[in-house]
Amino acid sequence: MGSICRSCNQKDTEMIENRGATWRSVVSLAVLLCIMAQLPHSCCRPPSSHGKPFRDIAEEVAGYKNVAKKIIDLAVYGKAQNRSYEKLAAFTDTIGNRMSGSQNLELAIKYMYNALRQEGLENVHLEPVKVPFWVRGEERAEMLQPRNHTLAILGLGSSIGTPKGGIEAEVLVVESFEELKRRAAEAKGKIIVYNQPFVSYGETVQYRAFGATEAAKIGAVASLIRSITPFSINNPHTGWQDYQEGVPKIPTACLTVEDAQMMTRMAQRGQKIVIRLSMEARNLPDADSFNTVAEITGREHPEQVVLISGHLDSWDVAQGAMDDGGGAVISWEALSLLRDLGLRPRRTLRTVLWTAEEQGGVGAAQYYQLHKVNISNFDLVMESDMGTFRPLGIQFSGTQQARAIMREVMKLLQPINTTALEEHSEGTDINPWMEAGVPGASLHTKDRKYFWFHHSNGDTMSVQEPTEMNLCAAVWATVAYVIADLEEMLPR
Amino acid sequence: MGSICRSCNQKDTEMIENRGATWRSVVSLAVLLCIMAQLPHSCCRPPSSHGKPFRDIAEEVAGYKNVAKKIIDLAVYGKAQNRSYEKLAAFTDTIGNRMSGSQNLELAIKYMYNALRQEGLENVHLEPVKVPFWVRGEERAEMLQPRNHTLAILGLGSSIGTPKGGIEAEVLVVESFEELKRRAAEAKGKIIVYNQPFVSYGETVQYRAFGATEAAKIGAVASLIRSITPFSINNPHTGWQDYQEGVPKIPTACLTVEDAQMMTRMAQRGQKIVIRLSMEARNLPDADSFNTVAEITGREHPEQVVLISGHLDSWDVAQGAMDDGGGAVISWEALSLLRDLGLRPRRTLRTVLWTAEEQGGVGAAQYYQLHKVNISNFDLVMESDMGTFRPLGIQFSGTQQARAIMREVMKLLQPINTTALEEHSEGTDINPWMEAGVPGASLHTKDRKYFWFHHSNGDTMSVQEPTEMNLCAAVWATVAYVIADLEEMLPR
Repeated sequence: MGSICRSCNQKDTEMIENRGATWRSVVSLAVLLCIMAQLPHSCCRPPSSHGKPFRDIAEEVAGYKNVAKKIIDLAVYGKAQNRSYEKLAAFTDTIGNRMSGSQNLELAIKYMYNALRQEGLENVHLEPVKVPFWVRGEERAEMLQPRNHTLAILGLGSSIGTPKGGIEAEVLVVESFEELKRRAAEAKGKIIVYNQPFVSYGETVQYRAFGATEAAKIGAVASLIRSITPFSINNPHTGWQDYQEGVPKIPTACLTVEDAQMMTRMAQRGQKIVIRLSMEARNLPDADSFNTVAEITGREHPEQVVLISGHLDSWDVAQGAMDDGGGAVISWEALSLLRDLGLRPRRTLRTVLWTAEEQGGVGAAQYYQLHKVNISNFDLVMESDMGTFRPLGIQFSGTQQARAIMREVMKLLQPINTTALEEHSEGTDINPWMEAGVPGASLHTKDRKYFWFHHSNGDTMSVQEPTEMNLCAAVWATVAYVIADLEEMLPR
Repeated sequence: MGSICRSCNQKDTEMIENRGATWRSVVSLAVLLCIMAQLPHSCCRPPSSHGKPFRDIAEEVAGYKNVAKKIIDLAVYGKAQNRSYEKLAAFTDTIGNRMSGSQNLELAIKYMYNALRQEGLENVHLEPVKVPFWVRGEERAEMLQPRNHTLAILGLGSSIGTPKGGIEAEVLVVESFEELKRRAAEAKGKIIVYNQPFVSYGETVQYRAFGATEAAKIGAVASLIRSITPFSINNPHTGWQDYQEGVPKIPTACLTVEDAQMMTRMAQRGQKIVIRLSMEARNLPDADSFNTVAEITGREHPEQVVLISGHLDSWDVAQGAMDDGGGAVISWEALSLLRDLGLRPRRTLRTVLWTAEEQGGVGAAQYYQLHKVNISNFDLVMESDMGTFRPLGIQFSGTQQARAIMREVMKLLQPINTTALEEHSEGTDINPWMEAGVPGASLHTKDRKYFWFHHSNGDTMSVQEPTEMNLCAAVWATVAYVIADLEEMLPR
């Protein structure tokens, strides 16, 4: 996920999605303005100074070589082999998907809370959060002209439903917002079908996020957006969308790449296209939910924290195994590995499994509001939310000094060839901290196919590989432990 | 498509599927026995003798260099550029899928008949065929235990339906026929879920073809088979299946790779799995259909024929663009190209668009019965039914002498780098002729992803590329024309 900050190249799609509640809109607007103005993020600001000389820190880090090897051995070759995969499979096969506000998410949180406690992790607790509650209901789209054809669709999060009986209207197919503007006079009373080509997720997701509003501005009655993916086997993808205040709300869904392309061809032949769209989607009052927390408490500075995270919620399709079951489970497994090895770092390792990320990082944002008073004690914030495929290393946001230290830490991962230290961490849930100057790290994997499955019925356990997850857990545990155990916190 | 003859490496899957009517069973059984006994097909028999010395034929073929260039120029760079793609898009967008017995197939045949006549092709006519008429109806599978989950399924051709209200039963998951046999005592009253790994289409399709019968033999009430594909985005694939006389008929469908894998994991955890399966599938009396024929009549030997073909029918999902709209359309386009260039070969070029291939080459089998009396006049039979992706060359079945001539013909395609001459042609519809010793050719393309889309909702125009289809049409027209225009027929 992620659109790109043109200055620092940091992906920030989640920010575009961060537009539910008012304060979220403010954060999102700031980032959007930053993107539009091509200004650097806070992560690109010049480094601040630090205490201990770098040479000494590098030497200190190198001293963890054997510890890193032990973690790797346990996760990749030892008795914890395939454990992340098995935890994730048991979890997602048992619960299924976990939509914000749903009973499934409630069950998922209970499941994780119990599992973390049963494992003997410390300070396991839940932190209450109010979360959006959007319900899909039944939905159906039928092409009636030029021929009968059932369209595979997925309504978009926050979309309103259609009136009972659905909406039947002629279609206007466009390939861009520019074309929509140019043909605004033709839009009144129509269903807009966007057949925008996939460029990158960050760029193309704007059609999903703003397609309904742009269509409504010129009098359209609904919008159907080509799914945001570079590859499809007739598989629609869902995701959040944003209405704009003062613009009428119209129902909106994603259709498949294939159907969008077909309608472009039909329109080019001058054929009239008519669709009947029926959606029961509803926005209910905010629901009760929780961020789920577990720790290995620090032996010297328990108040200082390395935060490791993934989000527990998912869309209401498939299993949410990739987005973000995998990230949540390796953030749990990192603690399990360290506990198995009896490793208690100087600072506290805190795993947080966020709620309602898909609605715009809602759980994480409330966590930030609650805990930012202690921001000086947050050493490093980590999130895995781009899949737990074959890991390559981590993406890091922080000062040049902090990056230099992180580079030394990554060298410890040479035995599993995951030493890459990329620019700029990403993660909806850790962005508030990074924006405020806390160093951030995200897992960087071979995620070429991520968007093939993303937010769709393709996001199942079948995209996960046990051996790849072993490596992800090893990277996650090693980085978190070493940073949490160094004499000094990372410089800001 | 195609299982493999262990002697000649010829793919023959379609043969396994050729088991509807009695005579078809005989053909299929013979091939099956051949496969099982590892005997060579007729295509592997030693070559017979021929008239004109090879050197002279090679020289004669080389004389077609300019003609081949003209065909290529027209198809790939000239005014016929993208014409195959456009013909196919207009056809499949307008008609949609074309199941044996359906009104859509009737519309498709009329569409093609009119299009071929309007283009001014010769001897355009329809040859009546009785075809199987299986109707899917509504179908639904719900996992009830260990949790509620909707399974994406596609019922299999010839399957019976369930009783009204469906079948609710516990599941036995197996990964092979061997495991099923070993656990036969557990099968009674259960739904068998086959989670066989994908090895090759030819090998693995046996689970789709015979899964229901093997399950019924040991008292199962239904069978659900993992879709026959190496890659899935939660996409079920359909196809033909065979009941065995004397064995109870039970309803059968394919489910997705993902759901089959999940049920294996659940079973391994000792969880009880219960599914409710509901299918309205029905076998109706055979319906009227037609093979569609068009020609460029030969100028010297109009009674001698080079047959070019693809099948017009498809499964009742998606658009049947790849299987086999593309093959049908390039077989039409080959004539169009030659007509545009005013090329009339010595022998007749006959395009046949088969009906009811998917039910076991039914249209083609009836055509063979009707026309085999003239078998000595059939010079070469060609079929494209493995997709019209980037062509590499052709697959050829025939004597060594015929192969040597074909190799010279393929050299004419050097300008578009499609000169490969592979062993052993494949094609359900041309197999009867090849079995009887007529040389056969099939289009060989870069078909790595063919089975990702095959018999599923993924088989749409989106898998087709105009530039690739240009090349396919050029190969098809060049090979057909040159063979039809040589002084002598191919040796047998």
